[in-house]
Amino acid sequence: MFSFKQLSEKFLQYLNQYDYKKQPAELYDPVKYIMSIGGKRIRPLMCLAGYNLYKENVEQAFNAAMAIEVFHNFSLVHDDLMDAADKRRGLPSVHKKYNDNTAILSGDAMLIMSYQLLEMYPDNYLELTQLFSKTAIEVCEGQRMDMDFETQVQPEIDAYIQMIALKTSVLIACSLKMGALIGGASESEANHLYEFGKNMGIAFQIQDDLLDTFGDEEKVGKKIGGDILQKKKTYLYLKSLELLSMDESETLRVLYSDSTEKTGDELVDQVVQLFKISHVDVHAQELKLVYQQLAFSHLKALQLDEERKVPLMNFAKELLDRTH
Amino acid sequence: MFSFKQLSEKFLQYLNQYDYKKQPAELYDPVKYIMSIGGKRIRPLMCLAGYNLYKENVEQAFNAAMAIEVFHNFSLVHDDLMDAADKRRGLPSVHKKYNDNTAILSGDAMLIMSYQLLEMYPDNYLELTQLFSKTAIEVCEGQRMDMDFETQVQPEIDAYIQMIALKTSVLIACSLKMGALIGGASESEANHLYEFGKNMGIAFQIQDDLLDTFGDEEKVGKKIGGDILQKKKTYLYLKSLELLSMDESETLRVLYSDSTEKTGDELVDQVVQLFKISHVDVHAQELKLVYQQLAFSHLKALQLDEERKVPLMNFAKELLDRTH
Repeated sequence: MFSFKQLSEKFLQYLNQYDYKKQPAELYDPVKYIMSIGGKRIRPLMCLAGYNLYKENVEQAFNAAMAIEVFHNFSLVHDDLMDAADKRRGLPSVHKKYNDNTAILSGDAMLIMSYQLLEMYPDNYLELTQLFSKTAIEVCEGQRMDMDFETQVQPEIDAYIQMIALKTSVLIACSLKMGALIGGASESEANHLYEFGKNMGIAFQIQDDLLDTFGDEEKVGKKIGGDILQKKKTYLYLKSLELLSMDESETLRVLYSDSTEKTGDELVDQVVQLFKISHVDVHAQELKLVYQQLAFSHLKALQLDEERKVPLMNFAKELLDRTH
Repeated sequence: MFSFKQLSEKFLQYLNQYDYKKQPAELYDPVKYIMSIGGKRIRPLMCLAGYNLYKENVEQAFNAAMAIEVFHNFSLVHDDLMDAADKRRGLPSVHKKYNDNTAILSGDAMLIMSYQLLEMYPDNYLELTQLFSKTAIEVCEGQRMDMDFETQVQPEIDAYIQMIALKTSVLIACSLKMGALIGGASESEANHLYEFGKNMGIAFQIQDDLLDTFGDEEKVGKKIGGDILQKKKTYLYLKSLELLSMDESETLRVLYSDSTEKTGDELVDQVVQLFKISHVDVHAQELKLVYQQLAFSHLKALQLDEERKVPLMNFAKELLDRTH
């Protein structure tokens, strides 16, 4: 049984020596570029950890972990283009470093490559790709909902939770389930891991929203309030509208509208003040805890020695308790 | 055994009642739109014809035919965006009717949907998706080569043939092979159909290039010379450069360069005149015939009653002899 640190070292070693196809270079160089610029590699690690719950030779799950990571990076390449985000992990995003058409086409190739990486599992192939396709299309649906929220005045909170579940959580859930299936887990065991990952993913995202607004700037390492500046309709915003008095929520709505003249720090300060008045941070913490507990109940339900679950539990706790 | 006309009627009936997923509408409406605006449906028909060589219940191959058609339309949606082509079959292309981001994201969803359509073939699933992924990534490679040719002064003729093989022929080849495999053909039989489709696809493309430049405007139904106006480096252009005298080929090169002042009809006329001097049309006809004969040799090699091959042979001849 491996610790997350060990799994991470093993995967990075595999990743660093991975031989991307070379020709045409204009198609494959951008793939290599985006895959090499880092990130926490949470998803492939979840896949390896899911496998390692059942089997020791984790190398067997490398290709599936890679499929997940290539898919995740495909979605980043296309999302960055759609969001006109010029930076990714501090470096130029693919459409900036190359151009828009390259981001489209190399992204497409990555989506196909992720399916090809699953071909080395003939025994589980239908099951794995079925799960993978279902997840992949859900990620598209989540991205679409996210884009549509921009033009909606006040999306439902339930729809927001569904959006973050689709956009981020289902891929984490899929990673864990894939690893487990390759490791020989039963469908029902693998489903517990799926639910663990999905609920944990939602809890992560709420944590992310909280850190972005209430985090310690020095610890987070970037200016807080990014979501507010982008007027993202996060849980904090949507729930505040419910919690605040009519006058206050109207003020908040105006701050998020095009008619506001407030910008920069002033905008952030005024929104944060309203968030604090609403005590939405307490609600968010509670909601995060609900999903966290739901997640852990599924981990608990696994028919395995408790000891085997420790690395996964610790990693989840670490991510959920993080202050940056 | 069905004629192509019968296969076409059956497939269009299936296509017209196909139930696309509905939510989020902003993701799936554009899919329905592009799938509904027509086209010759050559690829899905090839799949059904490949199946029908071996089995009668062609409904069994509808999902595979649909997978191919959805993939083909995905590639049109992304290609139109990359090429900034505002029309598709006389109607607004997806990025024009909706917007760029919708074209990217709904295109992505279509690529995933095409994999999902193959899930109904559990017995052949690995074999089918392996072929499909290989083909899909080749189509991306072909599109990349096509984009790269724009900035190359004089790509090799071999590279041009490889490009058209990847960009268009391998998908036709894949359609036929998939249909055959689902119909129970052996790998070696299915490979003959693949080679038939691939070589026929190359012959089609040469025919397309010829029609675009030497076609009868009234029969083709659009102005000829579109490739020349776009300064596309087709076989006609590349081979002419080889065939013409040094002075003439320099003139042609200048006409295709940014430094030329010639535009519109004048540009087309002068280029066509040089093409005629070079007799490149004769060379193109000969090359087309080489691929056509190669294609038919693979059809001939199939261990089937000659009579069963008639619809496919007639359809291919019809396409290859077309004057519009």
